[in-house]
Amino acid sequence: MSDGIRVTVWNEGKHEQSNPEAQKVYPQGMGHQIAQSLEGRPGIASVRVAQLHDPGQGLTDEILETTDVMTWWGHMAHHEVSDENAEKVVRRVVDAGMGLVVLHSGHMSKPFRALLGTGCMLKWRVWNEEGERERIWVVDPAHPIADGLPECIVLDKTEMYGEHFDIPQPDQQVFISWFQGGEVFRSGCCWHRGAGKLFYFRPGHETLPIFYNEQVLQVLYNGVRWARPTRIAGGLKRDMHPDPPEKIG
Amino acid sequence: MSDGIRVTVWNEGKHEQSNPEAQKVYPQGMGHQIAQSLEGRPGIASVRVAQLHDPGQGLTDEILETTDVMTWWGHMAHHEVSDENAEKVVRRVVDAGMGLVVLHSGHMSKPFRALLGTGCMLKWRVWNEEGERERIWVVDPAHPIADGLPECIVLDKTEMYGEHFDIPQPDQQVFISWFQGGEVFRSGCCWHRGAGKLFYFRPGHETLPIFYNEQVLQVLYNGVRWARPTRIAGGLKRDMHPDPPEKIG
Amino acid sequence: MSDGIRVTVWNEGKHEQSNPEAQKVYPQGMGHQIAQSLEGRPGIASVRVAQLHDPGQGLTDEILETTDVMTWWGHMAHHEVSDENAEKVVRRVVDAGMGLVVLHSGHMSKPFRALLGTGCMLKWRVWNEEGERERIWVVDPAHPIADGLPECIVLDKTEMYGEHFDIPQPDQQVFISWFQGGEVFRSGCCWHRGAGKLFYFRPGHETLPIFYNEQVLQVLYNGVRWARPTRIAGGLKRDMHPDPPEKIG
Amino acid sequence: MSDGIRVTVWNEGKHEQSNPEAQKVYPQGMGHQIAQSLEGRPGIASVRVAQLHDPGQGLTDEILETTDVMTWWGHMAHHEVSDENAEKVVRRVVDAGMGLVVLHSGHMSKPFRALLGTGCMLKWRVWNEEGERERIWVVDPAHPIADGLPECIVLDKTEMYGEHFDIPQPDQQVFISWFQGGEVFRSGCCWHRGAGKLFYFRPGHETLPIFYNEQVLQVLYNGVRWARPTRIAGGLKRDMHPDPPEKIG
Repeated sequence: MSDGIRVTVWNEGKHEQSNPEAQKVYPQGMGHQIAQSLEGRPGIASVRVAQLHDPGQGLTDEILETTDVMTWWGHMAHHEVSDENAEKVVRRVVDAGMGLVVLHSGHMSKPFRALLGTGCMLKWRVWNEEGERERIWVVDPAHPIADGLPECIVLDKTEMYGEHFDIPQPDQQVFISWFQGGEVFRSGCCWHRGAGKLFYFRPGHETLPIFYNEQVLQVLYNGVRWARPTRIAGGLKRDMHPDPPEKIG
Repeated sequence: MSDGIRVTVWNEGKHEQSNPEAQKVYPQGMGHQIAQSLEGRPGIASVRVAQLHDPGQGLTDEILETTDVMTWWGHMAHHEVSDENAEKVVRRVVDAGMGLVVLHSGHMSKPFRALLGTGCMLKWRVWNEEGERERIWVVDPAHPIADGLPECIVLDKTEMYGEHFDIPQPDQQVFISWFQGGEVFRSGCCWHRGAGKLFYFRPGHETLPIFYNEQVLQVLYNGVRWARPTRIAGGLKRDMHPDPPEKIG
Repeated sequence: MSDGIRVTVWNEGKHEQSNPEAQKVYPQGMGHQIAQSLEGRPGIASVRVAQLHDPGQGLTDEILETTDVMTWWGHMAHHEVSDENAEKVVRRVVDAGMGLVVLHSGHMSKPFRALLGTGCMLKWRVWNEEGERERIWVVDPAHPIADGLPECIVLDKTEMYGEHFDIPQPDQQVFISWFQGGEVFRSGCCWHRGAGKLFYFRPGHETLPIFYNEQVLQVLYNGVRWARPTRIAGGLKRDMHPDPPEKIG
Repeated sequence: MSDGIRVTVWNEGKHEQSNPEAQKVYPQGMGHQIAQSLEGRPGIASVRVAQLHDPGQGLTDEILETTDVMTWWGHMAHHEVSDENAEKVVRRVVDAGMGLVVLHSGHMSKPFRALLGTGCMLKWRVWNEEGERERIWVVDPAHPIADGLPECIVLDKTEMYGEHFDIPQPDQQVFISWFQGGEVFRSGCCWHRGAGKLFYFRPGHETLPIFYNEQVLQVLYNGVRWARPTRIAGGLKRDMHPDPPEKIG
């Protein structure tokens, strides 16, 4: 485990450029707000923002190799992330143990779908352009991602995401959401993939001030800490034809 | 659930063409032997063999749409299966609920890797060209795939597969193998993926008569029955923006 | 696997004796209604009702030894089931593979709590003595217990059960409920315990006609089929000090 | 999460009193050796030893209420732990989130069996009174309990534990063991139970110097850190009949 977690907040950064509503909510960009919420917290060594319009789409080897945990928010430009860069993110998770914290509409991003193997589609709705109430219930109070939260997080105005959410059953289900309109959703989901860990957290529309909510930010911070890399001494040996460690016959 | 299971045994069919050792063990092809073992068993409606050298690589729409459960054996020609055909198999599992039973070296096939999201690599060894002893222990005796088996299946001459096996933690772990040379392996693994089910079973080298072993064949049959499709009335509605079923506000 | 499933519907049978509302809904007792819904369905060999006021509390050795799957409904008299009888049910599940399908308020029954190891408590509410609306969403469409159901079962008048439900994370989560009053609940939960299988299904208040709903009854039938015993040839050998099957040194 | 973890090493302490072999290996008692290995490591606030022959069996309210994580080793005197004290340990895990790290023969202890709900029996063997070789393979390299370990821990002389191990499928399977004599075993198992976490680790016979092995001690330390309590602000509300947080009708 590294001494402190080096976080990269990957942010698509498109809505903030084109949508005045999004600019009003996140004048410096959503990535900036997420990064700021993590900076200086115990166990966090560094936080930087990387965006789609950065050189190398913010996914250069230099960035990936110096990232312990990456958070990911994208929505309208999933297809613009190159297949090669998406594959590099997947490999960094599976082979090198980088943690990946995928937020909200990131459920349709290339790395998330490749890591899960399913379609990852769902139902969605923004009611009257303002949203509806969501209640996010803790169902696994022993999980470190639930630490410090109340038994229920209430978001008064949010976008609805509804089942069926086409994901593999999470290894650990931390939160389940209730929506005013009648739907439920598996809102906090953990998986291990190879050497790495993957956490999905549902809230976070581009024009709703979700990432100012202190409890949402606590979940993000907890998720980043949970997703930090572990290290196998000497590495894992696969793709090999070993001599038998024990004598045969 | 259909009245009986329509099985397609997909077989790469390469070793049988080029390797006299493989021909000796499976003179009519490995696919034929697997198919024959399933035919006429309770609950099985039909069994056919499809191979890589068949029209459409044995993966035509007509075949996929009339298959409830597909078994898959491949090894030296994983790369020859077209990306398009591999994707069709994945979609048939995730979206339509086709069961997929992946055997032995099929762990590196395109559909298996895409459905799991990890590298799926492992260690391997054929000792003295004859193999070594494997003991396949049942660890989940309540699982239907273990039905009718003894607590341990012993294969005297087999290829070793060893950890780390780069797969997501199985939803259900049915078997764990011991090998003479000092390795262990998660040999019987179950996952759900979307509407479909996926079972991986380890034994089965091309030049060893594994698919004549009655207990191995019992596992295959159990796996096919476990993987049969289920049906949601009216289908699953995703990728949509529904009106709220409940009144809001 | 036995040729057909021998089902015992265990029913507390207290409310029907003392509460006119319960008598009106289930004039012959709730157990009778559940049993009737299972009789004659494919794969069901026999169905009988056993009740708390029967000899041996309906849990005699003769009954347990001829039961493949037991359904369990109890509420006001959990404490009257003797510790010895509860332990016999647990042993029959863990050691002999009997399936157990626990309904609604059975979550506080002695066998359920002993098999899970947690407190199994929850929140509850019957709104205005009539109940509120529940939407039971399928979250695992590949699971055989979801077979033949729509993506959502709607119960217009039901008792609310809310999180936190103090259970171990299910091995497989099939359903999640939404309630009008703002709660969610893990409504369909599967676990393996030793040689046996355990399914919990939430709906079923004593004065609400839940067990006349065709979709609820489909879930019960699916659950009984899923929970049927498997068989390890020769049995499982534990509590022993074996000679090593392999030569050491 | 508390600032540092307060650990109580619960030790049966019987073999050390009666068996000269055990005394030779652990002259100050096994508990002392385990405690010493944890003291002063990062994140550990305090470590104390509590034993069966202590007042209140080392399980007084004062001890339990000031313990964040308890390790447990017992073997010949499981039955001497009072039912009341075992139940207090279970409640402290489930209700208050105390972590429990159960070692080796602790698999038959009262708290472990009550928390899991199954029989927890297994096969065992000490070959030629000296033991045989065990290879403990990491199967979940992303898990924090595997941090800093090699892909395989080798113990040259150890007691064999073999499947079937009668436990519920672990929520996360970290290690699987290979034994010279032909058996495998699920050696590192994680479960959540209510507010608390439970880790089982296999090695540790009373007359073999297992708890001097640096890699074994690393697993213990990792397990203690993984099992530390989380905290739900305001606590979990169960066993209650709440007013609906949302307006009904």
